[in-house]
Amino acid sequence: MGAIPRVVILGGGYSGISTAKKLQKELHFSEAYITLLNCHDYHYFTTHPHMHGAGTDSIEHTRVAISELVDEFKIDLITSNIREIRLLDKKVVLQDGILSYDYLVVAIGGEPESYGIPGLEEYAMTIRSINSVRLIRQHIEYQFALYKVDETRTERLSFVVGGAGYSGVEIVAELADLIPQLCRKYDVDPSLVHVYNVEAAPTALPGFDPELVDYAMDVLQKKGVEFKIGLAIKECTPDGVYLTTGERIKAATVVWAGGVRGNRLIEAAGFETVRGRVKVNNYLHAPGHDNVFVIGDSSLIFNDEGRPYPPTAQMAIQQGILCAQNIVASIRRKGLKNFIFSNKGTVVSLGKGEAIASASGKRYKGWRAVQHKKLVAIRYLFTIGGIMLALRKGRFL
Amino acid sequence: MGAIPRVVILGGGYSGISTAKKLQKELHFSEAYITLLNCHDYHYFTTHPHMHGAGTDSIEHTRVAISELVDEFKIDLITSNIREIRLLDKKVVLQDGILSYDYLVVAIGGEPESYGIPGLEEYAMTIRSINSVRLIRQHIEYQFALYKVDETRTERLSFVVGGAGYSGVEIVAELADLIPQLCRKYDVDPSLVHVYNVEAAPTALPGFDPELVDYAMDVLQKKGVEFKIGLAIKECTPDGVYLTTGERIKAATVVWAGGVRGNRLIEAAGFETVRGRVKVNNYLHAPGHDNVFVIGDSSLIFNDEGRPYPPTAQMAIQQGILCAQNIVASIRRKGLKNFIFSNKGTVVSLGKGEAIASASGKRYKGWRAVQHKKLVAIRYLFTIGGIMLALRKGRFL
Repeated sequence: MGAIPRVVILGGGYSGISTAKKLQKELHFSEAYITLLNCHDYHYFTTHPHMHGAGTDSIEHTRVAISELVDEFKIDLITSNIREIRLLDKKVVLQDGILSYDYLVVAIGGEPESYGIPGLEEYAMTIRSINSVRLIRQHIEYQFALYKVDETRTERLSFVVGGAGYSGVEIVAELADLIPQLCRKYDVDPSLVHVYNVEAAPTALPGFDPELVDYAMDVLQKKGVEFKIGLAIKECTPDGVYLTTGERIKAATVVWAGGVRGNRLIEAAGFETVRGRVKVNNYLHAPGHDNVFVIGDSSLIFNDEGRPYPPTAQMAIQQGILCAQNIVASIRRKGLKNFIFSNKGTVVSLGKGEAIASASGKRYKGWRAVQHKKLVAIRYLFTIGGIMLALRKGRFL
Repeated sequence: MGAIPRVVILGGGYSGISTAKKLQKELHFSEAYITLLNCHDYHYFTTHPHMHGAGTDSIEHTRVAISELVDEFKIDLITSNIREIRLLDKKVVLQDGILSYDYLVVAIGGEPESYGIPGLEEYAMTIRSINSVRLIRQHIEYQFALYKVDETRTERLSFVVGGAGYSGVEIVAELADLIPQLCRKYDVDPSLVHVYNVEAAPTALPGFDPELVDYAMDVLQKKGVEFKIGLAIKECTPDGVYLTTGERIKAATVVWAGGVRGNRLIEAAGFETVRGRVKVNNYLHAPGHDNVFVIGDSSLIFNDEGRPYPPTAQMAIQQGILCAQNIVASIRRKGLKNFIFSNKGTVVSLGKGEAIASASGKRYKGWRAVQHKKLVAIRYLFTIGGIMLALRKGRFL
């Protein structure tokens, strides 16, 4: 590589932005050409609550223009969609062009995993983007509006969230906070509304401290959530779900948050995958491709007990930083570093005023955990965008 | 009728409330038992703009509890739905009971008339109540949310309003004001959005002063409305309409405001009807039933030129008052009065800051017409609920 190497980062989520920020800091001028590709011109904070804001401005609290985060003198930004990753040719085919790379960072996020459950892909809504969250929010309110013109259709007031992992629980919590607002707005008796959280595992929030899980379930049950734990969804239909026990839950709205798999572009590119995710090596390389890094939700990393780490923002950010360091080292022909995940703790929002958190062996509940959640989010805003971004977006947390 | 006569008023809209208010004022204690039946416990002002309010409180600006309007010591209120009007038995069968009457006031409003156009009843939305307006409002926003997750479906950004009479134009005007808000909220290029107003008659606002019609069309065209005048809808499908010319307009939202017919309960009761409306006599009696009055949108009254008056709030209120006077006269065995419509003028809202009005031979446009519209609405609030209601609801006009 005599010429200046070209680094292409696919994806402007937590991992891609972290890689870009670190690269622009570490690399000297003309050490590399860096291109960041994203499907939108903004970066989206998935840790904000989204469902409550119905106003025109609320979307601005949950995103920031990528051009505000990265230095456009150092990194070229492209907004497009990826059609294909051609590993042999070292090219990425876009909807409207082709990018050539010497180093590739695949940070294109995951997709909902439906585990082949019939009807789930057709009839359940999933969270993939800012737009899908707003669609779910509108879909829910639309059900209330529809119910008011035909009050025999009570399934319009039943909501099923599949999965009680971190995402599922956070969605259920937002839903539980939203329902009373909608009941007031549409004159609907709250006792007619049902919010179900169905989880196939023997516990909600698997992997979390059992005392905190109990606290979380207690908080959510008081907000009206009905848990169906240890019960799997067998089939999803236009008007609800069937559980493997044969029980039927009639509901016009099913949100699926039961699992994450890798992006389908990754399998199509010919990587070895487990549920669409690439089991990367210690340097975060895709096996057999020492110029290709896979990070974020599309990567798979195992802990010391041989179990995969869950795909989180925290994991994505740490991977992004190490990935950038290893690209710099590769360009400078230095030794690469091993990725070691440092668990800073986990926070799960339980809606307005409530959360649980575990960090450095300590447990936090309620108000303290909410503060902890805000702190984590503000620290991230500060890291990617400095004090101005933290002040501008942080006040809406 | 030796016993105290029973007066039953069916419907709590403009005409029913006006009847009730006048009756409670004119009748002495124990001259009659009066019952007012409505499907909701509130009276709804159809003259307010409705589509803009997305908040929890906005519904309260457009309605008032019936118990605040009528004196419950003088009038019994029942909230229920009508199953059947039995003229021979002098009974009204409700969803949960039966009412017997000596005098009946049928003020149950109209229904959308689809003129047998295929697909209209299945696929077009209509305005019948506060709930249907809110459903349309939510449906429109839902289309924007859906569009953002699949931008190939441009028909989601096209909106057809069928009918350019008073209602159709007011709906189109509200839609035209709503679209820019939704474009900002959902990052949608306004040039992708289309709002069509289709009218089969050779002019918009038939019957209105041609100079004002031109003004109205000009205002609305500047707000982005595309008029299709003199063109009839031949068929409505799930994804738009076909015009009789063969032209197809793709649109995920079709709102039908092309005509009003009488309530189907009226035909079922065995009244003679024209498009479901009863051609009442000068006393507002249904022909052949001198104890049954039909008023409001379900009644049909012809002007001196032999053309039917359009069903308006103004007409309904005047009918309600005369109907009450004639009931009082009947009870007191006095002579009945003839109904003579006194045209106070017409106001058509063209959305924020714009309207047209014609009154006592004068024409008003723009700001003056808007003030006129507000005045009419406040006068009505004052008439039915006194100064407190006018102050409380009037400020949201």
